[in-house]
Amino acid sequence: MDITKVAIVGGTHGNEYTGPYLLKFLKNRLTADKYSTFDLTLLLANPKAYQNNVRFIDSDLNRAFLKADLNNPALSTYEANRAKVINQLLGPKGNPKTDLIIDLHTTTANMGLSIILVDNNQFNLRLAAFIQSKMPESYIYYVPSDAYIGNSDHPFLNSLARYGFALELGPIANGLYRHDILLKAYEAAQACLGFVDQSNQGVDIPISDEIEVYEHLKHVEFPLDADGTIDAVIHKSLQDRDYTPLHKGVPLFEKLKGEIVCYQETETLFPVFINEAAYYRKNIAFSLTRKVTLRIMAKE
Amino acid sequence: MDITKVAIVGGTHGNEYTGPYLLKFLKNRLTADKYSTFDLTLLLANPKAYQNNVRFIDSDLNRAFLKADLNNPALSTYEANRAKVINQLLGPKGNPKTDLIIDLHTTTANMGLSIILVDNNQFNLRLAAFIQSKMPESYIYYVPSDAYIGNSDHPFLNSLARYGFALELGPIANGLYRHDILLKAYEAAQACLGFVDQSNQGVDIPISDEIEVYEHLKHVEFPLDADGTIDAVIHKSLQDRDYTPLHKGVPLFEKLKGEIVCYQETETLFPVFINEAAYYRKNIAFSLTRKVTLRIMAKE
Repeated sequence: MDITKVAIVGGTHGNEYTGPYLLKFLKNRLTADKYSTFDLTLLLANPKAYQNNVRFIDSDLNRAFLKADLNNPALSTYEANRAKVINQLLGPKGNPKTDLIIDLHTTTANMGLSIILVDNNQFNLRLAAFIQSKMPESYIYYVPSDAYIGNSDHPFLNSLARYGFALELGPIANGLYRHDILLKAYEAAQACLGFVDQSNQGVDIPISDEIEVYEHLKHVEFPLDADGTIDAVIHKSLQDRDYTPLHKGVPLFEKLKGEIVCYQETETLFPVFINEAAYYRKNIAFSLTRKVTLRIMAKE
Repeated sequence: MDITKVAIVGGTHGNEYTGPYLLKFLKNRLTADKYSTFDLTLLLANPKAYQNNVRFIDSDLNRAFLKADLNNPALSTYEANRAKVINQLLGPKGNPKTDLIIDLHTTTANMGLSIILVDNNQFNLRLAAFIQSKMPESYIYYVPSDAYIGNSDHPFLNSLARYGFALELGPIANGLYRHDILLKAYEAAQACLGFVDQSNQGVDIPISDEIEVYEHLKHVEFPLDADGTIDAVIHKSLQDRDYTPLHKGVPLFEKLKGEIVCYQETETLFPVFINEAAYYRKNIAFSLTRKVTLRIMAKE
């Protein structure tokens, strides 16, 4: 099946500046006729949050795309309305005019270039494997929606289209532009668009027949004090060690009064999103994943 | 002269989380009788901005301490009022009850531990030299107030007291706690307090007789487009090179359409605050300094 409509989205979280700059970059540097096999939409998802340098105005736009929520007119935060507008533009969810959505995010965690895969359909796996072949330093963080939110639907913007995923780049501060990160985002976007174009033209793109992904298992919360306030910082020996195996006994937290909290599980797991600033409000310190291998079929 | 009242201040900029956490740290970990020669005040300067994870609510608190502004009741932003309250608490400016103020800041720039010296009196030089002897990886960024704002008064919070300076730590994202940065802040705070205590006790503290400082020369602005909007990112070859000599011909910026802007001055200068997120609103990309040596007198 051809991919005839593609959207690259940035600024879904308004203080993640790399996406909005990537959109300007693409607008200025992609020649109009470079990709003749599909239409490309460049969308700044949350302009008001971007202008105010905040993640969101009222509620997280990247959690606003559950089908039930899109169909519920009673939900009327700024972002709930914005999600419905984007659903009209790129969707509607279930029967969308857009085939593929790439949504660009950044994180304060040391995630490098991470492909956040929520739907492991074969096209997504092939595209992810292709990006990884071009950018071998990248990772695939697989988040089955039912493992993450206990619901077979999922609330992310890219769920509007059948294909696509979020690209996550880090570490970078919120509200900051970095040339190196921006160039990496541009390289990843070009890899995606080049893959779609070649695929549409029937080019036989060599893809490995399996990929290694880090499958989401659970969130790990900060220790809290008696008032429910976060009572610790992530230990320096864990900081920046995303995707590095976590062994029993390693220090995870230092509590305010000096107590060290260590990793107790016997299984060696892989932490991701270590110390993402936006997750403090949910008390989430990091997430744990298990490394698994997914099979990629030859193109149907 | 004895230093009998000391204040350590954090959260002057509300989204610089290291300071507020350091205050909790000090409160929990300094035993009350550790320093018997002075009173210590721990002050969260801008609690409302901290709670909202923003630099400030209405205006920059760390530019609100010019004497004329403190005496002007018509200035009534949240921070203008807050400055007057802090002036009552730690000042009043000109005849303050506090002898020494250490104000803790963080930056997205790769500034390591920087002592931001605005008054080069001998006590400040000795204290800075002492910190540098304990933490040799630290830098001294000397910002004579008239070079910076064209005024012999200066607007920083620490100007309330005769002695003191800001400590700047980076790189760290706004709205983020990092254990390594926090421990460095704690080490610097302990060095300051220890110096004061020993000095008050008449201990002869060995101090070098000169220090190297980076003296502020000027700000460098981003290239702007016809609408006055920033039209470039800081080039990856400059990013993170704070305090590294800048030679003619080195790339400074990449403009949106690809043009590279290079350093044109013949004098080799030293850039600081490269890509500080808070300065985008002033179009400031970085500042240039000249390395100079200051003489330290024996204690009077």
